[in-house]
Amino acid sequence: MIIDCHGHYTTAPRELDQFREKQLAHLHEASQPVPAPLNISDAQIRESIEKFQLKIQKERGTDLTIFSPRASGMAHHAGNVATSAEWARVCNDMIHRACAMFPKNFVGVCQLPQSPGVAPANCIEELTRCVEQLGFIGCNLNPDPSGGYWTDPPLTDRWWYPIYEKMCELEVPAMIHVSASCNPNFHTTGGHYIAADTTAFMQLLTSDLFKDFPTLKLIIPHGGGAVPFHWGRYRGIAQDMKRPPLKELLLNNVYFDTCVYHLPGIELLTKVIPADNILFASEMVGAVRGIDPETGNHFDDTKRYIDAASALTDADRRKIYEGNARKVYKRLNSHI
Amino acid sequence: MIIDCHGHYTTAPRELDQFREKQLAHLHEASQPVPAPLNISDAQIRESIEKFQLKIQKERGTDLTIFSPRASGMAHHAGNVATSAEWARVCNDMIHRACAMFPKNFVGVCQLPQSPGVAPANCIEELTRCVEQLGFIGCNLNPDPSGGYWTDPPLTDRWWYPIYEKMCELEVPAMIHVSASCNPNFHTTGGHYIAADTTAFMQLLTSDLFKDFPTLKLIIPHGGGAVPFHWGRYRGIAQDMKRPPLKELLLNNVYFDTCVYHLPGIELLTKVIPADNILFASEMVGAVRGIDPETGNHFDDTKRYIDAASALTDADRRKIYEGNARKVYKRLNSHI
Repeated sequence: MIIDCHGHYTTAPRELDQFREKQLAHLHEASQPVPAPLNISDAQIRESIEKFQLKIQKERGTDLTIFSPRASGMAHHAGNVATSAEWARVCNDMIHRACAMFPKNFVGVCQLPQSPGVAPANCIEELTRCVEQLGFIGCNLNPDPSGGYWTDPPLTDRWWYPIYEKMCELEVPAMIHVSASCNPNFHTTGGHYIAADTTAFMQLLTSDLFKDFPTLKLIIPHGGGAVPFHWGRYRGIAQDMKRPPLKELLLNNVYFDTCVYHLPGIELLTKVIPADNILFASEMVGAVRGIDPETGNHFDDTKRYIDAASALTDADRRKIYEGNARKVYKRLNSHI
Repeated sequence: MIIDCHGHYTTAPRELDQFREKQLAHLHEASQPVPAPLNISDAQIRESIEKFQLKIQKERGTDLTIFSPRASGMAHHAGNVATSAEWARVCNDMIHRACAMFPKNFVGVCQLPQSPGVAPANCIEELTRCVEQLGFIGCNLNPDPSGGYWTDPPLTDRWWYPIYEKMCELEVPAMIHVSASCNPNFHTTGGHYIAADTTAFMQLLTSDLFKDFPTLKLIIPHGGGAVPFHWGRYRGIAQDMKRPPLKELLLNNVYFDTCVYHLPGIELLTKVIPADNILFASEMVGAVRGIDPETGNHFDDTKRYIDAASALTDADRRKIYEGNARKVYKRLNSHI
């Protein structure tokens, strides 16, 4: 079985974005109407999935996508805590409907109602609802709700502890995933995502977070940002700081996905990061949608790179494709 | 000849840091004394270089270091434009003295007197002084003078054009190098440096900066941050955005150094980035000072990785070690 741990509902019917536009318009100008409750039919959802994610799963030979709302759409910097609460509920309910329609192919991960300057404890209610009532198996945690200005405390601050406590209690992991950047210095998918992955890892390296939460599991997407490419730098910095070796310090709790869109990148990832810490992912339909002229295949068809990666044994591939996902997303096992 | 394009004067006599402490103390509390002019002897400078950078050059078999003030020490976020002007002059004068003492082994690159919210045009005077009077061959340009809050415009904004105009006129390149982070989300050398390298590249990818400045040369340090690891992502994003291929769009103007501290990283860098765009560098004595227990050699002894990189021909190595540096730092050729 091949589990893709990183898929967003980027193809949702346009009524979802229209709802968001109206929500923000009303927020900025009270005379604008409150958006009507979302009115999207099952047929619309079915079509939006069958034509894209489901079709691509079949073409590429993958089986199950761990599915969450569009990451750039979370935009926690927009509006306030009530805005984020409503928007998270609406988006998570859409994921729930899509997953319920295709239960063998999709399982849900939730967006959290984060807001800059608001303690993440406010996300516990929505996380609990999604896990206990909607059957979701994880969450996306945004390390920078400000959208590129990095004004909240780092992930290792006690500010975040209540949400980690709840995650551990519910046995769900988080993917550390920023949303859209509203800072012109950071292009969303080319700058902000990759920079955030990298700095999140470094935050973890300098802290004892996993002493406090030994069962907490965090996935750093996009292959861990720059981390595998600079694995020597991170090993060296940890050593200079008298920290334990990275394997001991972080690798019982931190995982990297395979959203790296060329074979040399996957070759590096699978050479330097233990196979036990890599989860298969493509982020389709996502940041890069075209065909690589050098290979004739889609950039984000990452299964081809994993199949070709010379450092991997068949046992490694089974871990990357399925075993590790079942270990990290523990609730997956009661689904499928 | 082996030219290391990325060395900072991290071993300067401690009087330099004391001067800075006094400068900032006076700024924050006017009753504190104005710092006395720096009083560092030639013997102190000689010792600080001979015991470290010069010794290591000899041990590792490199010849010339392109030498600039300590990057994290620039701290453009501290104080105001006058603070930065004084501090840049003091630091650059120290580089000049060190280079004058060892002209075969060091050549200068300057710190600029940047300050958050202040147009980079204010740096022209110091850049010109350093190049024309002190014989420097380049500058370090900080894409985020705020120190991790990213409050100034991106590098592609016309805000930066006056300094690019002067750089082109003087025929000097810039290394795009942030300084210390004052944002707890960004560890300076493990988070901020690498994130900045990555987002700077992405800024360039989305702009037509090099149509306006066809002779401008920019070096992205630390192997280009995450860029080579995600080269497929960047090629794909550029293609989706209908930009020209990266080679055509950027590689006449953008160069990566080799400050990547393990062989698998250098293998990747030299496989995906053309040898014409790679400049040898170690950043010694810098961010990582220890010995890699996996190899028994210093993490930052990057020459070993270049010598071992299987994708390189001897002709490629000559470019990386010398030819490209002479092409990018044009004024180097009149020095040595």
